[in-house]
Amino acid sequence: MIGIDDEDFVRGKVPMTKREIRILTLANANIGVNDYIVDVGAGTGSISIEAALIATGGHIFALERNSDAIHLIKQNAERFSVKNISIINAEAPDGLHLIPRIDVAIIGGSGGFLQEILQAIDAKLKTGGRIVMNFITVQSLAMCLNWFKNHTDYKYSAIQVQINRLKNLGFYDMAEAINPVHIVTAKKICQCQMSNLVNFSDAKSKFTHIIRSFVQD
Amino acid sequence: MIGIDDEDFVRGKVPMTKREIRILTLANANIGVNDYIVDVGAGTGSISIEAALIATGGHIFALERNSDAIHLIKQNAERFSVKNISIINAEAPDGLHLIPRIDVAIIGGSGGFLQEILQAIDAKLKTGGRIVMNFITVQSLAMCLNWFKNHTDYKYSAIQVQINRLKNLGFYDMAEAINPVHIVTAKKICQCQMSNLVNFSDAKSKFTHIIRSFVQD
Amino acid sequence: MIGIDDEDFVRGKVPMTKREIRILTLANANIGVNDYIVDVGAGTGSISIEAALIATGGHIFALERNSDAIHLIKQNAERFSVKNISIINAEAPDGLHLIPRIDVAIIGGSGGFLQEILQAIDAKLKTGGRIVMNFITVQSLAMCLNWFKNHTDYKYSAIQVQINRLKNLGFYDMAEAINPVHIVTAKKICQCQMSNLVNFSDAKSKFTHIIRSFVQD
Amino acid sequence: MIGIDDEDFVRGKVPMTKREIRILTLANANIGVNDYIVDVGAGTGSISIEAALIATGGHIFALERNSDAIHLIKQNAERFSVKNISIINAEAPDGLHLIPRIDVAIIGGSGGFLQEILQAIDAKLKTGGRIVMNFITVQSLAMCLNWFKNHTDYKYSAIQVQINRLKNLGFYDMAEAINPVHIVTAKKICQCQMSNLVNFSDAKSKFTHIIRSFVQD
Repeated sequence: MIGIDDEDFVRGKVPMTKREIRILTLANANIGVNDYIVDVGAGTGSISIEAALIATGGHIFALERNSDAIHLIKQNAERFSVKNISIINAEAPDGLHLIPRIDVAIIGGSGGFLQEILQAIDAKLKTGGRIVMNFITVQSLAMCLNWFKNHTDYKYSAIQVQINRLKNLGFYDMAEAINPVHIVTAKKICQCQMSNLVNFSDAKSKFTHIIRSFVQD
Repeated sequence: MIGIDDEDFVRGKVPMTKREIRILTLANANIGVNDYIVDVGAGTGSISIEAALIATGGHIFALERNSDAIHLIKQNAERFSVKNISIINAEAPDGLHLIPRIDVAIIGGSGGFLQEILQAIDAKLKTGGRIVMNFITVQSLAMCLNWFKNHTDYKYSAIQVQINRLKNLGFYDMAEAINPVHIVTAKKICQCQMSNLVNFSDAKSKFTHIIRSFVQD
Repeated sequence: MIGIDDEDFVRGKVPMTKREIRILTLANANIGVNDYIVDVGAGTGSISIEAALIATGGHIFALERNSDAIHLIKQNAERFSVKNISIINAEAPDGLHLIPRIDVAIIGGSGGFLQEILQAIDAKLKTGGRIVMNFITVQSLAMCLNWFKNHTDYKYSAIQVQINRLKNLGFYDMAEAINPVHIVTAKKICQCQMSNLVNFSDAKSKFTHIIRSFVQD
Repeated sequence: MIGIDDEDFVRGKVPMTKREIRILTLANANIGVNDYIVDVGAGTGSISIEAALIATGGHIFALERNSDAIHLIKQNAERFSVKNISIINAEAPDGLHLIPRIDVAIIGGSGGFLQEILQAIDAKLKTGGRIVMNFITVQSLAMCLNWFKNHTDYKYSAIQVQINRLKNLGFYDMAEAINPVHIVTAKKICQCQMSNLVNFSDAKSKFTHIIRSFVQD
């Protein structure tokens, strides 16, 4: 199961994906036991660790530019006895060319290079693979949605998640807000199927998303 | 107009009703120029000040138990040249017997005595008067809703308000959450009208809320 | 006071700015008694009506492309005896050249022409004037924020508002969500002051926003 | 992995726990492969089905009072080839005496009998077991929190989850709100340990929650 408590990770001052966001991100990644996964902007490694505990027959590539964070990822991997992980100290898209073909990409931070990162991931992602992204700024979210609108071999969905934690104060419980996060999830659809779209009206019902994008272009 | 910026008030360490909550609270209070108003748990006085600036022909009674806060209310009253205000250093319901008949009661904090406060306010509130309350705990909110369900001479409505402020970070804007607040607004309906409910079906459409409560009892 | 109940307006099938969003929008517009105001995408006219009731010595120009909506605005103006309103059946930015210099612009709908509308409004807006905009899509919001980042004679702030209304179900009260709205508020700062920025460090503290933008360009 | 799409379930008119709430509920339940689980107010069976797919060596007891819903649970169990499920057409707490000792209880609906249900579940729940509850009304939430404050052999936490789904409208993505849900999660702590609390200051650090409750009583 997923959902390790935030306090169970070694943290330091590096911002960490909160448990509820982590759970929804991992669920959307739909990770299989043998999946190869890249975690871009791994931070404390909380997502990488949980992904590694699911993909026990696969491997996680955790990319992170901050060397303090790199140290935390190592500590957390040790704490949870995770061995199927490679920690890469690089600022994406740098470092992404080093990894093999992947089933899942998770983007926690893009540091202003979202489009370059998506392009580099696209080159590595298998058909049927998933990209799950967390955004805390309007601009990154908008850029991301735009990218997927222009890449019709992906089907995307997006949600905003706002969590309030009830803080126990004796008789009372007080709502404390966590900053909201947008989660965008995209699945790479088989492109070969697209060339088979002979019967337009049949295809329309099955591949509405793709078709609509064609029509819009 | 309402909606003074949070930074324009003298604040100290006393928690202040955030601008957006203040605006919605004041709008629901539907303050008239000559209204008499009590502000229970006045804190920094931000709501009292804005109410006083609307009810220029009326008067505000600001109740607050914390003496540090009392000092802040005075400073804010001076800063905004508000003279139609009486500041009462007491823990409600204490002090509420001192005030005259009122048109509006605003409850920002109830310190565990919500029912006693509502009873004391009820004794002072004119027919047609409004009570607007802010809650940050589940228990106070539930207690409040329960009180109004048992006092069918009031018509109440309630909302939860969650505000995220976009923080400007150069090219980016990042959403920062403010703790959510429930606002309950209750209006005292004329009781004398209730005895005149001869024609049930006519009354039903006009006073559905009252009727339903009768049926439920 | 502001905050007419949603049900008190004639509505039809035209989408209406919900009461809580309307209140916060009007509060941010900081409307004066003699203000000239344009309401772009006026819809049912709910915002125009409330603005007109405040600016009794000013005038409202309500632009709306949908002729069904135009009819509703007229009905609502009559219902609330509002006479200081001109209803213009046009799709903005068309029609904006017809109006005089304004103090306030409210944009409820931009129909894909946000940049053109902002440019047209900018040409009419007095120094010190306010533009308040509501957005329900990521893309319009991002476009708006981008526009104001490139127009440093404006100071903007933005919030996301999420309201849950508690629906009374006998003993229970159930939270019902209203779709979230982003409200962006921009104030036109005096441009003449900008040329006087001789002392950089002094200016920095006073006009951080402007300076930062300069530095970024 | 968890997180079947809402559309993949047979639904009818029975309200269904939305995917995001389902994921967080299941993650909090921390279901093991051999767990015995009861799902009270199973509705369409979406949670029961996902729980059954995790606890392949365990068993799910799905309680539901509505016979239309019972039919849907059966159809969904067939659709996902789930065999480790017993569907019980009863209104909880009725029916709860029929089930064996359990590791996990999930409460999606309590129909006004929350306290009786919690008492019946408490009698069946193993030490270390989890109860995860979803609430859409203020009153049920408050009742639940109150119950756990009075049962100090449980450690509880609670969150409010508000999800906005971005609806793809061509170039635009529009936020659509889903009604917020509170999720309360409680874990049954070993009672036998409580009698061993000889060294108060040692115990204090380890069992703060329990101690605090003692002190408060």
